Amino acid sequence: MDLQQFHRRYAQVCQHAREIALLQSTLDVLTWDEQTYLPPEAGPYRAEQIRHLAGLIHERRTDRAWGKELEQLAPWAQEHLPYSAEADNLRLLLRDWRRQSRLPQSLVEELAHTTSRAQQVWTQARPQNDYQSFAPWLQRVLELKRQQAQALGYQEHPYDALLEDYEPECTTAQVRQVLLPLGEALRELLQRIVGSPQQPEPGVLRGRWPQDQQEKLGHLAAQQIGYDFRRGRLDVTAHPFCTRLGPHDVRITTRYDETYFPTAFFGILHEAGHGLYEQGLPADQFGLPRGEAVSLGVHESQSRLWENHVGRSLGFWRYFFPEARELFAPQLDQVSLEQFHRAINRVAPSLIRVEADEVSYNLHILIRFELELELLEDNLPVDDLPEAWNQKYEHYLGIRPADVAQGVMQDIHWSAGLVGYFPTYSLGNLYAAQLMHAAQEELGDLEELWARGEFRPLLEWLRTQVHSHGRRFAPVELLRRATGQEPSAKWLLHYLKQRFEPLYGL
Amino acid sequence: MDLQQFHRRYAQVCQHAREIALLQSTLDVLTWDEQTYLPPEAGPYRAEQIRHLAGLIHERRTDRAWGKELEQLAPWAQEHLPYSAEADNLRLLLRDWRRQSRLPQSLVEELAHTTSRAQQVWTQARPQNDYQSFAPWLQRVLELKRQQAQALGYQEHPYDALLEDYEPECTTAQVRQVLLPLGEALRELLQRIVGSPQQPEPGVLRGRWPQDQQEKLGHLAAQQIGYDFRRGRLDVTAHPFCTRLGPHDVRITTRYDETYFPTAFFGILHEAGHGLYEQGLPADQFGLPRGEAVSLGVHESQSRLWENHVGRSLGFWRYFFPEARELFAPQLDQVSLEQFHRAINRVAPSLIRVEADEVSYNLHILIRFELELELLEDNLPVDDLPEAWNQKYEHYLGIRPADVAQGVMQDIHWSAGLVGYFPTYSLGNLYAAQLMHAAQEELGDLEELWARGEFRPLLEWLRTQVHSHGRRFAPVELLRRATGQEPSAKWLLHYLKQRFEPLYGL
Repeated sequence: MDLQQFHRRYAQVCQHAREIALLQSTLDVLTWDEQTYLPPEAGPYRAEQIRHLAGLIHERRTDRAWGKELEQLAPWAQEHLPYSAEADNLRLLLRDWRRQSRLPQSLVEELAHTTSRAQQVWTQARPQNDYQSFAPWLQRVLELKRQQAQALGYQEHPYDALLEDYEPECTTAQVRQVLLPLGEALRELLQRIVGSPQQPEPGVLRGRWPQDQQEKLGHLAAQQIGYDFRRGRLDVTAHPFCTRLGPHDVRITTRYDETYFPTAFFGILHEAGHGLYEQGLPADQFGLPRGEAVSLGVHESQSRLWENHVGRSLGFWRYFFPEARELFAPQLDQVSLEQFHRAINRVAPSLIRVEADEVSYNLHILIRFELELELLEDNLPVDDLPEAWNQKYEHYLGIRPADVAQGVMQDIHWSAGLVGYFPTYSLGNLYAAQLMHAAQEELGDLEELWARGEFRPLLEWLRTQVHSHGRRFAPVELLRRATGQEPSAKWLLHYLKQRFEPLYGL
Repeated sequence: MDLQQFHRRYAQVCQHAREIALLQSTLDVLTWDEQTYLPPEAGPYRAEQIRHLAGLIHERRTDRAWGKELEQLAPWAQEHLPYSAEADNLRLLLRDWRRQSRLPQSLVEELAHTTSRAQQVWTQARPQNDYQSFAPWLQRVLELKRQQAQALGYQEHPYDALLEDYEPECTTAQVRQVLLPLGEALRELLQRIVGSPQQPEPGVLRGRWPQDQQEKLGHLAAQQIGYDFRRGRLDVTAHPFCTRLGPHDVRITTRYDETYFPTAFFGILHEAGHGLYEQGLPADQFGLPRGEAVSLGVHESQSRLWENHVGRSLGFWRYFFPEARELFAPQLDQVSLEQFHRAINRVAPSLIRVEADEVSYNLHILIRFELELELLEDNLPVDDLPEAWNQKYEHYLGIRPADVAQGVMQDIHWSAGLVGYFPTYSLGNLYAAQLMHAAQEELGDLEELWARGEFRPLLEWLRTQVHSHGRRFAPVELLRRATGQEPSAKWLLHYLKQRFEPLYGL
C-alpha cells in the first residue's frame, strides 16, 4: 500500500464512520426531544423509533467489511504515520469496532427500547413517589446490563466491562482504590465543617426567584464563560443534560426551582461546562474519534470546573453579583456579596446529589457505586434497593430520605441503562481540581480575571490542553500531559481545604 | 395462496412499511426541530442528516423484493378480500412503490438536502428582504422539481406529475377549470363588498395583545374543539405547520404578532384543524395507507373548516368572547361581541395569504398557481419573479407589495420544494364548504351548539365521514360519500354569500 492508496481507503473508512455519526446524532435528536418536548402519550412510539435507529447504527458499527479494512489500515498508519490524526482515528475506530462486534444486534435494540421506556416510566413515576411502577423496569434494565457485561467480556468484575464505555482503561479496582480513602477523608472534613460554630445563613438562597429572571442570569453567565448560543440552546427538562446533535449544535438543559436559587443557576453552569468541551472539539473531525470527547470523567471535569471552581468563587460573583441584584431586586436587596458567597458554598449533608455541596458530593457517588456493584452482581434484590439506599445515606451522611423521590429515584441514570457511570463524576472532581491547579500555575491569579468578566484565558487553556485532543489520549495520559502529574485525589483535597477551611473558620 | 399464507406474507409486507414509517417519522422530527428550535449555525449539518435519512427511506420505499411481493399480494387481496383494509393497504402501497421507483436515489437525496438548506436560507433572508440570497436556491429547487416531474412522468403537463403527490387523481386541467371561474366570481363578490358603505372597524383587532395571553386563548380554543394536548403540542415557528411524528404525537406551531390578534389565534385554529384530522386517523394503522391522510385538499378542508366556518362564526364567539375579554382586559373593554365578530370577518384585499379574508383568499392561490406553472415550464426567469408577483397582485387584488417579505418571499413552500401544493388550498376551501353544508343538513343548527362550547358532534361527524377512512377513498369519492354530491365550487360561493352579504348589508 502506498500513501495515495492509503488515503483513498482511509477516506472511505471515514465516510462510513461519518454516516454512523449522521444516524447517531439523529438518534440523539430523538432523545433530546424525548427529554424536553415529547407529548405524554407519544412515549411508546418514540421508544420504537429509538430501537429501530439503534439497530441500524449497530449494524453499521459492526459491519464486517469495514472492520476488516480497519484491521488492515490501522497498523499501517501506526507504522507509517505515527502520531497522525489518521493513525489515532483508525486505532480508536478499530477498538470501537471490536468492542461493538461483541454485542448481539438483538441486545443492542432491546437495550435501546427498554431504556427509552424505562426513562419515560421513571419521569412519570418519580413525582408520584411510585417505586412500584418503576421496579420491574429497573429489573429488566439490570438484566440487560448483565448480559451486556457478559457479551463485552472482562477480567475481574462485570462492572469493568461497563466502566470501559465511560472511562477507557479504568477498572473497578482502581475506582475502589481511589473512592474509599477519598470517602474517609471527606467524611472527616465534613464533620469538622458541620461542627464549626461559623455557619452561613442558608435562608439567603430561599424565597422567590422568578423563572424568567433565573433564565436571564443563567443565559448571561453561560454566554460570558464562552458557551456559544449560535451553536446551542438552553431548554427545560426533568434531569438536566448536555447533548451534541451536530458539529455546531450542542444543547444544554436545566430545571427551575422558583423557591431556591442554586438549582438552575449552578445546573446551567455545569451543563455549559459540558457544552464548552463539546463546542471545543474539532468540528472538522465530527463523527471520528479525534472529534469526540475522551471519557465521562474528563467531561465531568469540565462541568465541575466551571460550576464549582469558577462559579462558586468570590471572583466570579464580584463580576456577576451586581447583575443578580438587579434581576432579583427584592430578594437580594439586603444581602451582601460576602453573605451570598458564603451561602452558595454552604456545606451540609443533604439528600439530592445534584444539589450536594462539594465536600459531601463524592459521598453520594460512593453510595451509588457500592449499590450498583451489588445490583449488577445480583446480590441486592431490586425490591430491597430503596431500603439499602436509605441505610447507606444514614451511614455516610447521617440523614435518611423521607421518600423515594428524594431517595433512590432521584437520578435518571439507572433507568437510562447508565450503570458504571456514577464513579466518573468523582473522577471528574479529581481531574477538575488537578487541571485547575495546573492552569493557575501557568496563568496566575484567575480570580482577578473572573472578577473583570474575563473567562477567555482559562477557556483557551482548556481548549488547548483538553478539548482540542478529542479521544487522542486516554484520560490518564491526557491529565499527565496537561498537568505534568499522575492523576491523584490529593489536588481535590487540597482545593477543598483551601476553599472551605477559611469559610468555616477552621 | 390460501388465506393463512396470505396473512403471513401480508404481515411481512406491513412490517417493511412500518419500518419505513419509523424512519420517515424520525425524519419528520428532524424537520420539526429544524423549524422550531435549531440553533442558527446548525443548519448545514441538519441538512446532511436529512439527506442521509431521506436516502435510507427511499432505498426501502423502492425495495425490489418488497415491490414484487406487493405485485403478487395486491391483486389477490382485491379478488379474495375486496373492500378490506388489507386490500386497500396493498393497492396503495403498490401504487406508492411504483411511483417512488421512478425516482433516482440521487435525486431524492439531492432534493431533501437542497430543500432543507433552501428553507434555512429563506428563514434568514425573508426578514432581511433579501431576495438575492434566496434566488439561486429557488433556481436549484425548480431544476430539481423539473427533474422530478420528468422522472415521475405525466400525460399533459409536468405540473400534473407534482400535483399527484398532493392531490391524487387530480390534474392541472381540472384545477384550471375550477380556479379560473371561481376567481372571476370572487373578484365580483370582492368588489361589491369593498364598495359597500357598511364596513367593520379594523382598529378593533390592532393594539396590544400580549403573547402569553394569546397562547392561553389559543391553547384553550384548540383544546375545546377537541385537539388533544396529551398527544400533541403547540410551538413557535416562522411559517406555521402541523406535523405527525407518531401515532400519538401530532404537533402544531404558530407565530405571534403582539400588535394584531388574528395572526396567531386563527393560525392556531387552522393548525388544530389539521391536527384533529391527524389525531383522528386510525392509530393502529400508523405507517400504512389506511392510517394516512388522503390528500392535502382534504387536509386543508379540515383546517379551513375549523378556522373559518367554526372559528369566525358568531356562535363560536358567543362562547369564547367572555374568555377573550378577561384575557385581553384593557383591549376589549369597549368592544362588543358584534363589533368583534364583524372585525374578524373583515374583507379587504391584502398582501399576505395566510392573513387573507375568506373572499380574497383564493385569489392569492390563483396568483401562485399561475406563477408556478410558468416557473416549472421555465417561462419565467427566477430573477423576474418578484416583479411578476407584484403585477399579478395589482391585477387580481389591486394592491402592490412594498417589499419581497410582503410579496414573493412570504411563503415557505417553494423553498421547501412544495411546487403544486398551492391549489390544494383552494380545493380545501371547496371541500370545507361542501362538508359543512352536509354536516349541517344532518346535525341541525351547529352554531347553537358552538355557542354552548359543544364541538364534539361536528368532530364526531368528521371523524366518521373523513378521518377514519385514511387513504381508503380518493378525495372525489370521499366527498361524494360524505356529502352525496360531486365536488363543486357552488357550496363555497353559497357559503361566502350567506356569511358576508348580511355582514356588509348587501
